[in-house]
Amino acid sequence: MRTDLKIGFLLFPYMTALDWTGPAQALCFSKAHQLYFVSSTLDPVVSDAGYKVLPSHTFDSCPPLDVVCVPGGPGQQGLMSDAPTLQWLRRQGKGAKWVTSVCTGSLLLGAAGLLDGYRAASHWSYREHLPLFGATPDSARVVRDRNRLTGGGITAGIDFALLLLAELHGPQEAKEIQLLMEYAPEPPYDVGRPELAGSEAVRSVQKRLANEVELAMGRLTHA
Amino acid sequence: MRTDLKIGFLLFPYMTALDWTGPAQALCFSKAHQLYFVSSTLDPVVSDAGYKVLPSHTFDSCPPLDVVCVPGGPGQQGLMSDAPTLQWLRRQGKGAKWVTSVCTGSLLLGAAGLLDGYRAASHWSYREHLPLFGATPDSARVVRDRNRLTGGGITAGIDFALLLLAELHGPQEAKEIQLLMEYAPEPPYDVGRPELAGSEAVRSVQKRLANEVELAMGRLTHA
Repeated sequence: MRTDLKIGFLLFPYMTALDWTGPAQALCFSKAHQLYFVSSTLDPVVSDAGYKVLPSHTFDSCPPLDVVCVPGGPGQQGLMSDAPTLQWLRRQGKGAKWVTSVCTGSLLLGAAGLLDGYRAASHWSYREHLPLFGATPDSARVVRDRNRLTGGGITAGIDFALLLLAELHGPQEAKEIQLLMEYAPEPPYDVGRPELAGSEAVRSVQKRLANEVELAMGRLTHA
Repeated sequence: MRTDLKIGFLLFPYMTALDWTGPAQALCFSKAHQLYFVSSTLDPVVSDAGYKVLPSHTFDSCPPLDVVCVPGGPGQQGLMSDAPTLQWLRRQGKGAKWVTSVCTGSLLLGAAGLLDGYRAASHWSYREHLPLFGATPDSARVVRDRNRLTGGGITAGIDFALLLLAELHGPQEAKEIQLLMEYAPEPPYDVGRPELAGSEAVRSVQKRLANEVELAMGRLTHA
């Protein structure tokens, strides 16, 4: 087992925090790598849930990563043409062993040119935008295409991280961490995918998502 | 639907972040309440995954909460006799509509005297300690006993939060948020509970957990 791998998460304002806090939790339990929390500056980054996180590294101070992971969320829209972010993703993507995302993070990977010719996952309500970047949408919960590993919406990050652990360190490590995290989910309803939830619920959720940028900005609890 | 409910999470050093970031993510998508991230001071709080979070309120500045939620994690052990934390929990617990926890957060609720005579959940490896506080361990993923709602280990927080949403605002709100979060989990292995994983895996994970305080302290990525 290699013990010097570097795994980095991109943090940005109004990210959907669980997109990366889920994977970071699963990955932190392995001693076989170090986690990096990277943003354009070291200023606190507000999540869409209203709390703030401190980055550990900036684009400049972050070393070359073995795994780069991009979360999604309402703030992703504002970064689709942000040169420093896209340049950092391109630079890290060139050398990384794994180029990965959760939720609408795949659209950011796409904007950086890193999914051209690849199959990829995204949040169900945004998947259709992937072809804009030369990527083929795939409705699987986690999609592997060569060294691209992309997860679906928000909670798919936990399944994604366990599969990444298995790729990096073998299934035994992934299994022990799944047990450590007591990951035997019992969703209270059978509505976690649009085809299960029905068209009325889908429309209602899409209405919520259309206002999600503004809503997220209204959630900041801090003074 | 009431729109002025206050839901507060206790933050403390070396908390298992997903214990509360999972619930906070689910809960933030409802407009019907405000989230509070509360700690003894406003200093950044390091999680067991190595990143730091800024509290929004201190014990003193936090208003009376309708729902108080206590996460667990390696840092929980250091708080079991911390007077300011236990006093705050007792004060909030007295007036709260719901007194809740995820993972070993139930042991902190217990230490504050808030689970005496209640059934409660906890992480599978720590559940047996609940009787020390007059609580009856329950192996269900989420346990409701009167106004106590307690979740099992780490990832149980997501199931917990959806059930809490249903209690607070009705099943329709919980269902839409489950769809928004694309919560149709596909765990890669069938090993998320000790009885599924087998005794060898259980022993191996318990060895990891025995060193988890030290391990968590070694994960701080920040300078």
